Amino acid sequence: LIRTAIVGASGYSGAELLRFLSQRADVAVEKVIASSSAGKKVAELYPAMSRDVEAEYEEFEPESLDGLDVVFVALPSGEGMKAVPQLVHHVDHVIDLGGDFRLKSSALYEEFYGHKHTAAGLLCEAVYGLPELSTPAICAARLVANPGCYATSALLALLPALSHGVVEPHGIVINSLSGVSGAGRSSAVELSFAEVNENVRAYKVGNHQHIPEIQSTLEQSAGEKVSLSFVPHLIPITRGIYTTIHCNLRMKTTASDVLQLYTSYYASAPFVRIKKDIPQIRNVVNTNYCDIGLVIQERTQQLIIMSVIDNLIKGAAGQAIQNMNIMLGLPEESGLKR
Amino acid sequence: LIRTAIVGASGYSGAELLRFLSQRADVAVEKVIASSSAGKKVAELYPAMSRDVEAEYEEFEPESLDGLDVVFVALPSGEGMKAVPQLVHHVDHVIDLGGDFRLKSSALYEEFYGHKHTAAGLLCEAVYGLPELSTPAICAARLVANPGCYATSALLALLPALSHGVVEPHGIVINSLSGVSGAGRSSAVELSFAEVNENVRAYKVGNHQHIPEIQSTLEQSAGEKVSLSFVPHLIPITRGIYTTIHCNLRMKTTASDVLQLYTSYYASAPFVRIKKDIPQIRNVVNTNYCDIGLVIQERTQQLIIMSVIDNLIKGAAGQAIQNMNIMLGLPEESGLKR
Amino acid sequence: LIRTAIVGASGYSGAELLRFLSQRADVAVEKVIASSSAGKKVAELYPAMSRDVEAEYEEFEPESLDGLDVVFVALPSGEGMKAVPQLVHHVDHVIDLGGDFRLKSSALYEEFYGHKHTAAGLLCEAVYGLPELSTPAICAARLVANPGCYATSALLALLPALSHGVVEPHGIVINSLSGVSGAGRSSAVELSFAEVNENVRAYKVGNHQHIPEIQSTLEQSAGEKVSLSFVPHLIPITRGIYTTIHCNLRMKTTASDVLQLYTSYYASAPFVRIKKDIPQIRNVVNTNYCDIGLVIQERTQQLIIMSVIDNLIKGAAGQAIQNMNIMLGLPEESGLKR
Amino acid sequence: LIRTAIVGASGYSGAELLRFLSQRADVAVEKVIASSSAGKKVAELYPAMSRDVEAEYEEFEPESLDGLDVVFVALPSGEGMKAVPQLVHHVDHVIDLGGDFRLKSSALYEEFYGHKHTAAGLLCEAVYGLPELSTPAICAARLVANPGCYATSALLALLPALSHGVVEPHGIVINSLSGVSGAGRSSAVELSFAEVNENVRAYKVGNHQHIPEIQSTLEQSAGEKVSLSFVPHLIPITRGIYTTIHCNLRMKTTASDVLQLYTSYYASAPFVRIKKDIPQIRNVVNTNYCDIGLVIQERTQQLIIMSVIDNLIKGAAGQAIQNMNIMLGLPEESGLKR
Repeated sequence: LIRTAIVGASGYSGAELLRFLSQRADVAVEKVIASSSAGKKVAELYPAMSRDVEAEYEEFEPESLDGLDVVFVALPSGEGMKAVPQLVHHVDHVIDLGGDFRLKSSALYEEFYGHKHTAAGLLCEAVYGLPELSTPAICAARLVANPGCYATSALLALLPALSHGVVEPHGIVINSLSGVSGAGRSSAVELSFAEVNENVRAYKVGNHQHIPEIQSTLEQSAGEKVSLSFVPHLIPITRGIYTTIHCNLRMKTTASDVLQLYTSYYASAPFVRIKKDIPQIRNVVNTNYCDIGLVIQERTQQLIIMSVIDNLIKGAAGQAIQNMNIMLGLPEESGLKR
Repeated sequence: LIRTAIVGASGYSGAELLRFLSQRADVAVEKVIASSSAGKKVAELYPAMSRDVEAEYEEFEPESLDGLDVVFVALPSGEGMKAVPQLVHHVDHVIDLGGDFRLKSSALYEEFYGHKHTAAGLLCEAVYGLPELSTPAICAARLVANPGCYATSALLALLPALSHGVVEPHGIVINSLSGVSGAGRSSAVELSFAEVNENVRAYKVGNHQHIPEIQSTLEQSAGEKVSLSFVPHLIPITRGIYTTIHCNLRMKTTASDVLQLYTSYYASAPFVRIKKDIPQIRNVVNTNYCDIGLVIQERTQQLIIMSVIDNLIKGAAGQAIQNMNIMLGLPEESGLKR
Repeated sequence: LIRTAIVGASGYSGAELLRFLSQRADVAVEKVIASSSAGKKVAELYPAMSRDVEAEYEEFEPESLDGLDVVFVALPSGEGMKAVPQLVHHVDHVIDLGGDFRLKSSALYEEFYGHKHTAAGLLCEAVYGLPELSTPAICAARLVANPGCYATSALLALLPALSHGVVEPHGIVINSLSGVSGAGRSSAVELSFAEVNENVRAYKVGNHQHIPEIQSTLEQSAGEKVSLSFVPHLIPITRGIYTTIHCNLRMKTTASDVLQLYTSYYASAPFVRIKKDIPQIRNVVNTNYCDIGLVIQERTQQLIIMSVIDNLIKGAAGQAIQNMNIMLGLPEESGLKR
Repeated sequence: LIRTAIVGASGYSGAELLRFLSQRADVAVEKVIASSSAGKKVAELYPAMSRDVEAEYEEFEPESLDGLDVVFVALPSGEGMKAVPQLVHHVDHVIDLGGDFRLKSSALYEEFYGHKHTAAGLLCEAVYGLPELSTPAICAARLVANPGCYATSALLALLPALSHGVVEPHGIVINSLSGVSGAGRSSAVELSFAEVNENVRAYKVGNHQHIPEIQSTLEQSAGEKVSLSFVPHLIPITRGIYTTIHCNLRMKTTASDVLQLYTSYYASAPFVRIKKDIPQIRNVVNTNYCDIGLVIQERTQQLIIMSVIDNLIKGAAGQAIQNMNIMLGLPEESGLKR
């Protein structure tokens, strides 16, 4: 039995982790931690889980997690870097779903996150947990930084083309649309139904904190400098991310060559589906899949890539479990396909 | 030129009042009052009005409103009863969109609103401003209490049948569905998009504060005791109320008789449309109309009435302007039909 | 291995059946039948299932189903009664998700469905498959008529109170709100997004075809005549039914007594949850649960019952699988809880 | 009194034209033409207009329109080119809301629209009716081709920067999100609520028919070749377009310089608002405004432009009325601001 805990279990990602993990016969969630809701039953905040999940939220006491196999940290950025250092020496594996351990440079972190990094000593060790890119490193990791939701959709879309030199590393334009659950369980007026419904707005134009993790991961993979623009938009859906990417072809190529490249790049990836037509969010909602569609636009010599994920699953909790599976040597799909 | 002010102008009803009034050539909105946003431009909170509305929110200083023709009070219940007494002696007409002056009995008020009434002396004078019911009283009023949104939809649906003895005054069942703007501009988690979208929930079952104003207005009109049940539901739309009512027929009647009764009852009401088929919210959104549909159900000897309004217009700001028009002797439709 | 087939697999209920069944190790879906899409892959119509479901739609040829353990029929009413008679003698168990075998009286069928019943000979044998009501009969059945979605939500809400004489059998008022998937995979203009979004409309007021199955099931259970009114409404959500019921108390009772009655009535029902507060659709979407909330309204001596289900799961495919489990002697939850 | 008619009045754009025009005291809509609905009252299809619009749909008989001041043609592309030649000699002004007269080259038309142009002789005369670009030509025109909705949002966003040489004419990337009403009043399954809700999909990637009108208008304005990519997406809202554009700066510039350029470019445009922050669809819905936001992204030396319109108003009916106002020498805002 795999003994786990979730720190920060009252947010949407934490709840989704709990929902997935509690359905597994081979996993026990021994602690469900959320200081703000300590003493409440999970089913009070998430009545959907009543009868299925009996657990109660508890305070964070690192020593109480001693000896667990895996601890998931689903805290806001800035909070994760306080909790993780208290955990890494006491539990076998830590998977952080926040942004605090995704970058190697604390300077870059501070630029995009707007506050100092107080656990920079762990940045080097942390493994960026995009399973389709770096399974072996995840296998060996003690601390995995689960990728951002936008980053997941952009990276899975770009890695094959960029790592194979099919597209230019400069001038990449990434537009993403996200459902509101991506903003977390929030009481901000601007996330109220009356403000979000029948509306769209871009936000953090040019300075979203997922930019550096996209860029540095691409650069590592491409072996050269990458420059890109990323504009996220909030749209009136609950779950899902739609990412549309324009990049310039570096070489003459055909639709079928690109399709072939992507298909073979992801041949052993159980959760990436290369589509022959345009992907749609509805096909991946409530799954750990990422669907990718590809269009060669002759007129502008560009490759247009569209990718879709469920932001709370492949973009957060599902990917974290996929990482856990890899870290523990289990089949990658365990508990992620019904 | 009609000189007006809006007290509590930063909420949805206040903003809607401002939007309607600022389009009229015969009306000037001289003060736009919202203490919480004092100093900000209206267009900062409501960018939709930029270029069209230049006004700035100001603090509430009753004396600054001295001599105005009409002051609209769009404050939450409990706040209105503080502001209104400071206004009635200084301005010609006060229209309160909140719930503080809709009931004649302060005891009933305290039962349903949960706090003491501190301006009970004005309850007697205040005229319940449902124009289709009591135009003459509104004409003569200094203080009008604008009906609640649910109450408007229920009363317009029930008044003809009940006042003509077509249905029993007992056993009336009112189910209403409301868009989220009815809850006001709010930062409550339970009104966030992620919680409201793809969801429905009933609330305040059996104790909603609109119950007493529906009941007492019906009793006055029917001339006998009325008993009713009212269950409001929150549904994922921004604007609109759908009310479905069951009541028991007191006499044999036919669909065409009932249709005829309603049509003639509202023959001179510019904003009530009696439909031959089932009403739909979309037909009244952004208008001051109330659409009403009628079905005689032989099997149970019941009259089923459906009515729809835009909660922010016929259910709030539009009706308030209709009341103003009546109070000032203007055509009832002024500024309410494009 | 349980050998099954789905006839009418291209609609939403059929697709949902396929999604659930294809995840079970103990079930094989051997035929996926949809004449209108014969020759196409399931994943063409439902790309969400690509990679997970390889099946192809086939023509309906009853003999090809010979010897199967269970055949699900998910055809529109009027079509089911053509297919079912061709199946009952060749397969062990037939579960019809349509309305054709839910009533005992062909006259009643013809009144509400508007066409003749051409397989009235099977009406007597067919078992109305509401598992919480009649597990033993389902156990022994060869042909199960899966209840309607509205009927499921109304019956589960009313059965305990009515069968125990807590409420009057007359004057029951049922209001239901349904998501659009309840209307099936449709190209009607009035189900287009632009018409449904930000809208509500009642429909089939007083003559919906689920009325007779609700009424007759209640009468059997109450042992007396029942009269009720039922008004369904279409609201802009994809999945889910919210049912709010008013009924008159027959005896003095308390909230806690009623809560106790319902809790004990459903003590062994794995998919009914009696709530202490108001139920919400979001808590049951994507599950086979029915959540029920109860309010005693002293003022009118009424019991107000609210129930919620996912119309495609507890209201269709999930309940059909629950019935299959019972018919085959499997645990009722098999394949229905992740 | 301005005597008008609408040909193709049963679609959303036609209905919106009718709604706007019927509110004007200076305009009479003498014929409301829609062959598919001939004989029906407008209020049957659009109950929202009942009481306000009494008109009845009629068959298209060009001679019956003889002598009118303005005829609006709101037919699908391919139909407009049949009707317009029958009108131009008989009425003073024709405004075509479809795509048939927006391009100067019939070859280009055939490439993007997929069928032959049968009235190519009128292409030269037709004036592309983007009022902010070409008021004088519109003034003098007999036939105005109303711009496409996407084209309107993209052109208003790009014209200032491109015509002033601030950005490169190559490598422009345009991503647009559209509400579903843009697809017209449709019964396609893929536009049904159950398919569109909680979903996003790109479509016509790289070959949308608005590409050539955007490109050729920009080229005329820039005085040089332009190359661009355009990807439209369907999102679950009823009305509105959100367009996000990336283009490469040609010269060093600052945010305030660009803001200044746009503000002065549109100084006399009553319906374009240059915003200091990020535009949102909700601020323009139900108005004829186009809101534009501008971000200079130093890191990539790009200008990111966001523009929003209501696709049925500034993107169709509102702009057509704006064009009518200009053609007739009326104030541009007549009937377009409440």
